[in-house]
Amino acid sequence: MSSSTSAGYRELPGRIMAREMGEQPAVLRRMLDTGAGRIRETARGIAAKRPRFVLLNARGSSDNAALYAKYLMEIRLGLPCGLVSMSSITAYGSRPDLRDVLLITVSQSGSSPDLVASTRAARSAGALTLAVTNNPDSALAGVCEQHIDIMAGPERALPATKTYTAALLALYLLVEGLRDSDGAAARKLPDLATQLLARQSEVRSLAARYRFAERMVITSRGYGYPTAKEAALKLMETSYIPALSYSGADLMHGPLAMVDNISPVIAVVTDGAGGEALQPVLDRLRGRGADLVVIGPVAQVKQASAGFVLPTEGVAEEVQPILEIIPLQRLAHEVTLARGQDPDAPRALAKITETR
Amino acid sequence: MSSSTSAGYRELPGRIMAREMGEQPAVLRRMLDTGAGRIRETARGIAAKRPRFVLLNARGSSDNAALYAKYLMEIRLGLPCGLVSMSSITAYGSRPDLRDVLLITVSQSGSSPDLVASTRAARSAGALTLAVTNNPDSALAGVCEQHIDIMAGPERALPATKTYTAALLALYLLVEGLRDSDGAAARKLPDLATQLLARQSEVRSLAARYRFAERMVITSRGYGYPTAKEAALKLMETSYIPALSYSGADLMHGPLAMVDNISPVIAVVTDGAGGEALQPVLDRLRGRGADLVVIGPVAQVKQASAGFVLPTEGVAEEVQPILEIIPLQRLAHEVTLARGQDPDAPRALAKITETR
Repeated sequence: MSSSTSAGYRELPGRIMAREMGEQPAVLRRMLDTGAGRIRETARGIAAKRPRFVLLNARGSSDNAALYAKYLMEIRLGLPCGLVSMSSITAYGSRPDLRDVLLITVSQSGSSPDLVASTRAARSAGALTLAVTNNPDSALAGVCEQHIDIMAGPERALPATKTYTAALLALYLLVEGLRDSDGAAARKLPDLATQLLARQSEVRSLAARYRFAERMVITSRGYGYPTAKEAALKLMETSYIPALSYSGADLMHGPLAMVDNISPVIAVVTDGAGGEALQPVLDRLRGRGADLVVIGPVAQVKQASAGFVLPTEGVAEEVQPILEIIPLQRLAHEVTLARGQDPDAPRALAKITETR
Repeated sequence: MSSSTSAGYRELPGRIMAREMGEQPAVLRRMLDTGAGRIRETARGIAAKRPRFVLLNARGSSDNAALYAKYLMEIRLGLPCGLVSMSSITAYGSRPDLRDVLLITVSQSGSSPDLVASTRAARSAGALTLAVTNNPDSALAGVCEQHIDIMAGPERALPATKTYTAALLALYLLVEGLRDSDGAAARKLPDLATQLLARQSEVRSLAARYRFAERMVITSRGYGYPTAKEAALKLMETSYIPALSYSGADLMHGPLAMVDNISPVIAVVTDGAGGEALQPVLDRLRGRGADLVVIGPVAQVKQASAGFVLPTEGVAEEVQPILEIIPLQRLAHEVTLARGQDPDAPRALAKITETR
């Protein structure tokens, strides 16, 4: 029985989201084949201005993509970074001195009035502005000096999927361009994404585990942390399960009290320094008898209650987030179907959110 | 029946947290009377170095205090700000160029190894470093050029209460000092805090509402947003209710799907621009029939399902967060007692968290 209120979707609930998830290998390949050159040129133009500080401006899934860019900027470029508290500008009229600042606004539609307003204000305060959107004709692209098109094609499902991975890849190529690298580590992603998408039945059996879950905790560290946040957002906006995401370190500072054998935990374990830093958290969770599902390398999955093995061998840690979200998008989709709801028709969501 | 495992607390569960909440007026008064002068001197020393960017470094409740400081820095000083992604430094060994950067590390104990390590690394990368702690003899105070003592006295309950409001006031006085102001707006806070603490029975009847809640959403915008995050953390670490906090704008970008008449919402409504920017969100929540409890000015409480009136008349918006968390701390305490648990003995928390 479906709880969908949108009669048109009744027969195949979730088909729009499923189709767009399935497009991801092609979207990634298109960007590598036809978008990477332009991104590298954009990066050259930005590098010539020598920004000293980066501010990232986004909401929702794009905010999780921005957080991924923050790790890249800090770790691979040594540039200090911050996420914009938009209301400082839009509600309080703050006009900080933004000379030497690169402001990157990430938005699928490029249309949210608050993002356009805060970006315009940042530009007039001296920032070099870059829009990363799925629409080169958008208002946001218009107010920025530079624009990167994520070329994902129209996205019709309300939960963002292909525009998320496309934004990650665009931001990765931008950061590699800023360090004068060609981002070769990304080249194997389209094929690996295809392999991940073929493993739907594995995800479906994981989803059964959460059929009656009343809450979930998703944790990671470093490069995997944006994945944990994005997975929580996907689960909430499709299945309405309250999914709390924490960096492993923050989890130890309080919310761990909430984790016990009725609060299942999903850990996103990258193969690299972030995954290593997460080990004490995983040990602690296992010690508490938590139901721990790992999305990560095979050795990590083996030590967990269950999991989904990611192909990380020979895949640089900094590009793993572009793959690891894929089974988690699918998990949100499958859990939602298992609970009799329609992933294409979440309550209360509009594709362009008109916050001001 | 208590579910506490700590036999010593059985007879008066929550008495330690209650005592420390009750100390808040005295702690605030002590800082205004005997700490403000030194904070102003510290601010003068920092202002002379003319930092151009601010990075804030913290975890847990201190991270929420840091977020409050971010709004103050952006709005009242026009300084661009970011929150540190600590694993960039501690797990990945990133060494960003931090000349012209003021790094503020906030930590009650001043002892977390990861905070000490990341602060030391930031200092060697060129940042001007300031520790804000409750322990001038701590390792963190030792690695920083500047230190502000929040003078809250020993905190024994695991959930931080008096050290949170003390850190907010210290950070407010710091920012006012940086703009060469004496922070007079804070002077009425100790008396108002006393009045709030006297209204325990009002909070207790609000708490009854959440006796069987399986999840909660807490929202705000602008200056009230750190309060929403801190209230969610308090509720989770004492009562284990999954409490999700969102800025009102972010709530519209997805998680709203989760809010319906079984997901109660608490809105922290400041009297000022942040509260005004929250109005469309409140209208939308009311339109969806959400159970909406407002912590805010009387006119806002009247339009809600229930609430707690804050004395905001003549209280500047930027100091309201120092008051508005107090009934929410008490709410976490009362909800936890109502559910037969002991707020003094949350599972799995240690006072100094040894994340690395």
